[in-house]
Amino acid sequence: MIKMTTPKRIAEATSESLHRIFTTAEAPDSTLGRIEQEVSQNLAGFLNDHIVASKNALSDIEQDFISAQIPEKPQFVSDHMHHLLDKLVAHSVHTASPSFIGHMTSALPAFILPLSKLMVGLNQNLVKVETSKAFTPLERQVLGMMHNLVYQGDDDFYQQWLHSANHSLGAFCSGGTVANITALWVARNKLLKADGDFSGITRAGLFAALQHYGYKGLVILVSERGHYSLKKSADILGIGQDSVIAIPTDEYNKIDCQKLAQKCQQLTEQNIKVLAIVGIAGTTETGNIDPLNEMADIAEQYQCHFHVDAAWGGATLLSNKHRYLLNGVERADSVTIDAHKQMYVPMGAGLILFKNPSAVVDIEHHAEYIVRKGSKDLGSHTLEGSRSGVAMLVYASLHIISRPGYEMLINQAIEKAEYFADIISCHESFELITKPELCLLTYRYVPKTVQIFLAKAGVNGDSKTQDEINLLIGQLTKFIQKRQREDGRSFVSRTRIEVARYGGEKVIVFRVVLANPLTSKEILHDILAEQCLLAQESELYLPQLLALSSEQ
Amino acid sequence: MIKMTTPKRIAEATSESLHRIFTTAEAPDSTLGRIEQEVSQNLAGFLNDHIVASKNALSDIEQDFISAQIPEKPQFVSDHMHHLLDKLVAHSVHTASPSFIGHMTSALPAFILPLSKLMVGLNQNLVKVETSKAFTPLERQVLGMMHNLVYQGDDDFYQQWLHSANHSLGAFCSGGTVANITALWVARNKLLKADGDFSGITRAGLFAALQHYGYKGLVILVSERGHYSLKKSADILGIGQDSVIAIPTDEYNKIDCQKLAQKCQQLTEQNIKVLAIVGIAGTTETGNIDPLNEMADIAEQYQCHFHVDAAWGGATLLSNKHRYLLNGVERADSVTIDAHKQMYVPMGAGLILFKNPSAVVDIEHHAEYIVRKGSKDLGSHTLEGSRSGVAMLVYASLHIISRPGYEMLINQAIEKAEYFADIISCHESFELITKPELCLLTYRYVPKTVQIFLAKAGVNGDSKTQDEINLLIGQLTKFIQKRQREDGRSFVSRTRIEVARYGGEKVIVFRVVLANPLTSKEILHDILAEQCLLAQESELYLPQLLALSSEQ
Repeated sequence: MIKMTTPKRIAEATSESLHRIFTTAEAPDSTLGRIEQEVSQNLAGFLNDHIVASKNALSDIEQDFISAQIPEKPQFVSDHMHHLLDKLVAHSVHTASPSFIGHMTSALPAFILPLSKLMVGLNQNLVKVETSKAFTPLERQVLGMMHNLVYQGDDDFYQQWLHSANHSLGAFCSGGTVANITALWVARNKLLKADGDFSGITRAGLFAALQHYGYKGLVILVSERGHYSLKKSADILGIGQDSVIAIPTDEYNKIDCQKLAQKCQQLTEQNIKVLAIVGIAGTTETGNIDPLNEMADIAEQYQCHFHVDAAWGGATLLSNKHRYLLNGVERADSVTIDAHKQMYVPMGAGLILFKNPSAVVDIEHHAEYIVRKGSKDLGSHTLEGSRSGVAMLVYASLHIISRPGYEMLINQAIEKAEYFADIISCHESFELITKPELCLLTYRYVPKTVQIFLAKAGVNGDSKTQDEINLLIGQLTKFIQKRQREDGRSFVSRTRIEVARYGGEKVIVFRVVLANPLTSKEILHDILAEQCLLAQESELYLPQLLALSSEQ
Repeated sequence: MIKMTTPKRIAEATSESLHRIFTTAEAPDSTLGRIEQEVSQNLAGFLNDHIVASKNALSDIEQDFISAQIPEKPQFVSDHMHHLLDKLVAHSVHTASPSFIGHMTSALPAFILPLSKLMVGLNQNLVKVETSKAFTPLERQVLGMMHNLVYQGDDDFYQQWLHSANHSLGAFCSGGTVANITALWVARNKLLKADGDFSGITRAGLFAALQHYGYKGLVILVSERGHYSLKKSADILGIGQDSVIAIPTDEYNKIDCQKLAQKCQQLTEQNIKVLAIVGIAGTTETGNIDPLNEMADIAEQYQCHFHVDAAWGGATLLSNKHRYLLNGVERADSVTIDAHKQMYVPMGAGLILFKNPSAVVDIEHHAEYIVRKGSKDLGSHTLEGSRSGVAMLVYASLHIISRPGYEMLINQAIEKAEYFADIISCHESFELITKPELCLLTYRYVPKTVQIFLAKAGVNGDSKTQDEINLLIGQLTKFIQKRQREDGRSFVSRTRIEVARYGGEKVIVFRVVLANPLTSKEILHDILAEQCLLAQESELYLPQLLALSSEQ
């Protein structure tokens, strides 16, 4: 191109190059093109070879992201890509790695990547038909399929409601938190609906609603393993965090239904209304599932909304073998499922499902230019407004993987967790804390002598010594987990949970989620071996522990 | 592969093919591979050539999405891609088309597509550092840049707060609705915070909070052009939709500050607390910007939260030429900006910004296994939980396009809107309803004789005739808009707004958003020509209108 120097020409040139970024793709042999091909062609390879979570401390990485100035000079795409590779990608977390077994974010099937690009390129907005057209019926169909998975309605049911403008079998949303908020929002607005002169909470607000109905308060009951988003929901909805009452769990981390029923009775006598009972199908920390049928009975008895937070465990319904674990879920008024967890879809595919297609009537919103009353715009029944067409990825996954494929993935994950639990139990230096019901488990590193010592203290009823030892083991667990994460070869997470065998005291544990289909048995052995080595490097806690256990 | 028939072998084969979908990409010459290359190599071309919004009615399209059964048989990726192309893509809306000028969803720069694929492939979860590492400081930097764009703090300010664990300059979220909810949530919790014996609304809920503070109610004040998400926010937050009070606008669709101040005074006298005054920077329907400085004065006087909903117009701050239009935005306590609107990033990149880095303290949430107190986990200050790394796309766009590049895009869009307004005004069969302040405008098709007749009725004070005529024009506008959308060559939207020159009566109008850089002047002329032709096809409304206007 001939050099142009006058201001007008510079402006023209810039304008032209701006036009180009909207029309001309990067050449296939550009840096971006090459990286992209590499990502496409071998996802697992790319993520393993190139994106090893670096050892750099966060505070060091922050130095690369320190300027709050928006650049005044444009950068070439390829130059920027080099910059991103060097500063961002190299220091990101390779969540797809088979040795990343600490959280619910996992590997994605390879076909997801090109489909995602298509989805982004189409840039549909699902808030209204005018910006999504076929994506709207597609999303409704996926909602129907997921509804069917949970509630197993008959053909007539789906024929009647699937595409009905003023009804909805559920909603896509960014994730489980928004799904839970939506469920409780629906429950709250239904409970405190218009009544005689009272225009309803939607219009008149919570204060007037409680005055009208004469309740002294509203509460949400959930086991102590409930996800923190429930407290957040209670805060946002004006109910208050203190109104989320944690019901104790049994030794299997399942809600104690007797205590739940007692609490319902006690609250009712105090004229405090139970807004919702929340069952958990796959607790975040241990993966256990509440006795949903018993909970449904109690919810029926006290006539309150029954919500099941199956953000993690909902996908288990795809397994004919394990589906029974969630028996009773079909009695829930609403169910949260995250497709971006065990359904292997990228981040941002949360779902809330409603048993009753009319449930959403209490959260309907309309506007003049979109989501007009009677339209099929999905936006009239969602908490969010503009939304992407991510339903397409769930649709494609359900077709390409199919139910039996998902069943195999889920069954294998549970088997793998059982295998891991076995080798932990057999290993002399590890203590299994929670057995896997789904593919989650918790454990910790405890040398044999310490295990024996702890058990002896238990037999002697010496809880003081137990607590002391557990505190030290907790420090050691933190040390190992942090070091392992920083070394970047593998990753397990950690949490603190009440453990029945230690008098219900909170204990720090490793937490493992075995969702990645590529995680091999060998990797599991390696992770334990690495933890044993790291424990030896603890110059403080391990010697203290061993000394304490041997001296008495 | 040799045929295997025993059940065990079938299971093994299926297991192997499942393993393959997580590791082996589609061949470049597969259908998916080819489509993907085509999308990459010529976004505009692909979307124009292949994704013409089809003429099929929604009810026809629904027939392809009717089954609520999850497939029992897996489908080959390429077969499924054919199916998607045929049933979904062919009937989607090509929002990137230069003749799609009806909504705020527009074209994307070509570099976004490969970067999106990388983002999806990395599958980071921004809720915590453990699943995002470098993405966390990156997101904080982008929040800092956007904060700087609005508030123009000095270097010390950003050095102090950008990466401070217990502070936050804002949050990414799925979109403007969640951003607005977050802003009002923060405002509500701050107003009704812990005080003496009262534990604060976060813990105790809204009912106890209003009792403690003795307010008779809380209200949100916004002009009648406010986005419907504000009513939704009020509903969700327990304040109630009726507490969103619409203040009238002047003839330029800007809030009448005298009436706003009067309302504040009146409410204060009634002991009703103004929770927040909301300024709009780019109304959804007309693109106008409220007098933010005057509103800030009033908010200061009545000591209430001042929020600016700049979901659309916020990007205008990138234009040194037009930035003045938002003067006063820097006095807002919180500002909503959607990067997926005028910043040309894909769906799902909403932002809420807070003037005060401590503002988020009132919505902090923690859990044992993540977002622990004192950690840098972004999840402790967001409404949502798990979130994607979409901040990366904003980061890349700010670097590749840079501020002057954005300025050019924004300036050109406004100039184009002014040009379109000019040709509408000069055209004998069109009436400009709202002039563009940003790149939005509204107009309608009104034949010359009808225009003259309407004006005469106005002079004579004959509002009955005016209303009658406007009703008919409204029917005609609906007819044209619907037909144009169905024909699928171009798309304008429609809405109903109060028009001062017609006594403030609501009138149906065409609404146009000229954000796509590829929309040419020629296309604008074509769209008007098409509308003229379509008007002629109205066998009901146009003859009626002409008859009515000539007979008297």
